[in-house]
Amino acid sequence: MLNKHEMGDTVALMAEVGRKAREASRPLAIASDERKHAALIAMADAIRRNQEIILQANALDMANGEEAGLSPAMMDRLKLTPDRIRAMADGIRAIADLRDPVGEIIAEWDRPNGLHIERVRTPLGIIGVIFESRPNVTADAGALCLKAGNAAILRGGSDSINSSSAIHVALVEGLKAAKLPEDAIQLVPVTDRAAVGEMLKGLNGNLDVIIPRGGRSLVERVQNEARVPVFAHLEGICHVYVDKSAKLDMAVSVVRNAKMRRTGICGAAETLLIDRAVASTFLPPILDALAEAGCEIRGSEEVVAIYPNAAPAGEADWRTEYLDAIISVALVDGIEGAIRHIEKYSSHHTEAIVAEDAKAVERFFNEVDSAILLHNASTQFADGGEFGMGAEIGIATGRMHARGPVGVEQLTSFKYRVRGNGQVRP
Amino acid sequence: MLNKHEMGDTVALMAEVGRKAREASRPLAIASDERKHAALIAMADAIRRNQEIILQANALDMANGEEAGLSPAMMDRLKLTPDRIRAMADGIRAIADLRDPVGEIIAEWDRPNGLHIERVRTPLGIIGVIFESRPNVTADAGALCLKAGNAAILRGGSDSINSSSAIHVALVEGLKAAKLPEDAIQLVPVTDRAAVGEMLKGLNGNLDVIIPRGGRSLVERVQNEARVPVFAHLEGICHVYVDKSAKLDMAVSVVRNAKMRRTGICGAAETLLIDRAVASTFLPPILDALAEAGCEIRGSEEVVAIYPNAAPAGEADWRTEYLDAIISVALVDGIEGAIRHIEKYSSHHTEAIVAEDAKAVERFFNEVDSAILLHNASTQFADGGEFGMGAEIGIATGRMHARGPVGVEQLTSFKYRVRGNGQVRP
Repeated sequence: MLNKHEMGDTVALMAEVGRKAREASRPLAIASDERKHAALIAMADAIRRNQEIILQANALDMANGEEAGLSPAMMDRLKLTPDRIRAMADGIRAIADLRDPVGEIIAEWDRPNGLHIERVRTPLGIIGVIFESRPNVTADAGALCLKAGNAAILRGGSDSINSSSAIHVALVEGLKAAKLPEDAIQLVPVTDRAAVGEMLKGLNGNLDVIIPRGGRSLVERVQNEARVPVFAHLEGICHVYVDKSAKLDMAVSVVRNAKMRRTGICGAAETLLIDRAVASTFLPPILDALAEAGCEIRGSEEVVAIYPNAAPAGEADWRTEYLDAIISVALVDGIEGAIRHIEKYSSHHTEAIVAEDAKAVERFFNEVDSAILLHNASTQFADGGEFGMGAEIGIATGRMHARGPVGVEQLTSFKYRVRGNGQVRP
Repeated sequence: MLNKHEMGDTVALMAEVGRKAREASRPLAIASDERKHAALIAMADAIRRNQEIILQANALDMANGEEAGLSPAMMDRLKLTPDRIRAMADGIRAIADLRDPVGEIIAEWDRPNGLHIERVRTPLGIIGVIFESRPNVTADAGALCLKAGNAAILRGGSDSINSSSAIHVALVEGLKAAKLPEDAIQLVPVTDRAAVGEMLKGLNGNLDVIIPRGGRSLVERVQNEARVPVFAHLEGICHVYVDKSAKLDMAVSVVRNAKMRRTGICGAAETLLIDRAVASTFLPPILDALAEAGCEIRGSEEVVAIYPNAAPAGEADWRTEYLDAIISVALVDGIEGAIRHIEKYSSHHTEAIVAEDAKAVERFFNEVDSAILLHNASTQFADGGEFGMGAEIGIATGRMHARGPVGVEQLTSFKYRVRGNGQVRP
């Protein structure tokens, strides 16, 4: 099935994938929640039932990865275990239980002429997901797209193609069991770059949005080349600003959590800004707590002067998403200075303020232009699950359509329904 | 000011326009409604005050247009009169009085850990409007963008550049009077195609959305070449379906209004679909009413057989937006056939059903994938003003972000504000 040479021309293949997705998207858009729920539960069951087949496919990918010299981190992302397969199935069940967004009336109003107008949620149509080595994205992304009534075109990396294919077989079993079109979730059966290129061109209008799931170079390529809308973030250079009005103990725990709970996620803090007014009293305990937790500290000259254990930070540090146990630290002139620094260096993902002064908080909330702003809480809450969305397919930093966590609601569009009784326009 | 040769390189000029827009967008995004309201009222006043200057500039454009051999329709679009200038000023006043969308809390909820999450409206940022000969777009589009806190980059056609510039002067007077940045509304001072090309490339990230206002070829170029999101519709091939359950007199008046009230607008009906079950009784009175109103009728073979005054319609007719007193007419097998025809030929703009059968209406509302669907009402209500949005900058048929009439709300994005009291993520 995966033999490229049997697949013929990638351009023609991808055009056909798009055509089949559009065809599947129509019955899917009007499928009842009961049917979508049934399909998702059947998918979860099939994943558990096919566990051995999935593990065998994964063993093949792991052996190939070993041979290809994948890094330990990549090998870990690739690896499936019975626990990880169970978690995948449970994730699908959780998505099945989310509220169906399709058909929800977002707004409605009456006009003086008696027309009643409703704005109602509809599926977006066809969602393309381009991912790298994590095979579980097949299940997560496919399920989330389906819940919102969208057809999905999944293009996984070559490293995980055997695992992804085995998972995809289980998803298709679930679709069939619920009598939904098999093509509702397609896994692109070739892994050459040309397939991605065709998706970026939009499959002749048969792709409504692309979601890249992977490293910086993938996201960058997709953002630069895609001719269809993209939901993504390139990086998460997240800031925590500690105002002079902050409670010091809260600042210590929020900063430590924001940086060190998990350092490899996009919502991890990368830069700490401290109000110059309280530098001498606040800096040492906050930086001590970070250092104790194993964090390397890189500070501006002023910071190093107060806290000599800090290494000097250069201009590049303010622009770096470490994704590691490293933090850059600068002093700023109050809320004004914090906003100015963030405006200059932020990736518009997530920023937090620790403060008791309500005016400072309101300025921060009004003036900082990032998808997620937090007051007195860790940046690590930047997550669809933590927002109560149930599941997310990623976090977007664009200004259009979806911003912040992209959950099932963000995978919908809307249309207007206008009910009259014979109205004509004068 | 308008001398291209003094302007130097268009690429550098447009980069500078973008940079200035981004700079202006920041104070604009946090400007109070009072200040934006004051600016808009001052703009309306300045337009009235500068009426003579605007008329003189327009006379110059009209003389140039005469010489260039513009069509009577284009000359009419270009022409300003004291009445039209008054209407322009009144339009700005109406926009001033709209509710400010910025800062509106669209949704809010609490999490079990005590976090309070708000989704709040923000401006989109910088909106580019590319238009042709109607100089009043300068005022409408500039005012609507400002109300939603966005910076606007307006690029008018060469035919109307003197008129647009004179109007723009009045807008800047209003901005200055309210102490808002002058660059909040910029009129591109060159009219060569290269300026449009730079906008389509996105001005180095300093353009968040493009709205083309003009004919098909402009919209097509923008949709094909833009590297930033576009709010637009290419055409409005709007359908009216008359079900066998319809009240005949209502069908007659809705169809006549949908087609003939104004034939040149995007919401005008272009194709009439009649339930085959009632063809012999419904067709003659409906088509008689259209013919009496001066409409040319092009029917399928079956239609011509019942109504011999109809000319035969070819395949091309189902794909044509006449924007004229011409209608194509086909018989369909009930709601199923209507949906199938619309799915095949619609431009996803606006469609109407005339029916008393609630089940047929619900199928139409659920299954037809167009921005606006109407029941027992004319397609000519497809308009932001008629929707109660106060004003619109256009109608969009894409699935992303804005769909249907694009009013002040559709010119906004959102961000999340999360309020905590020291929460860290476990």
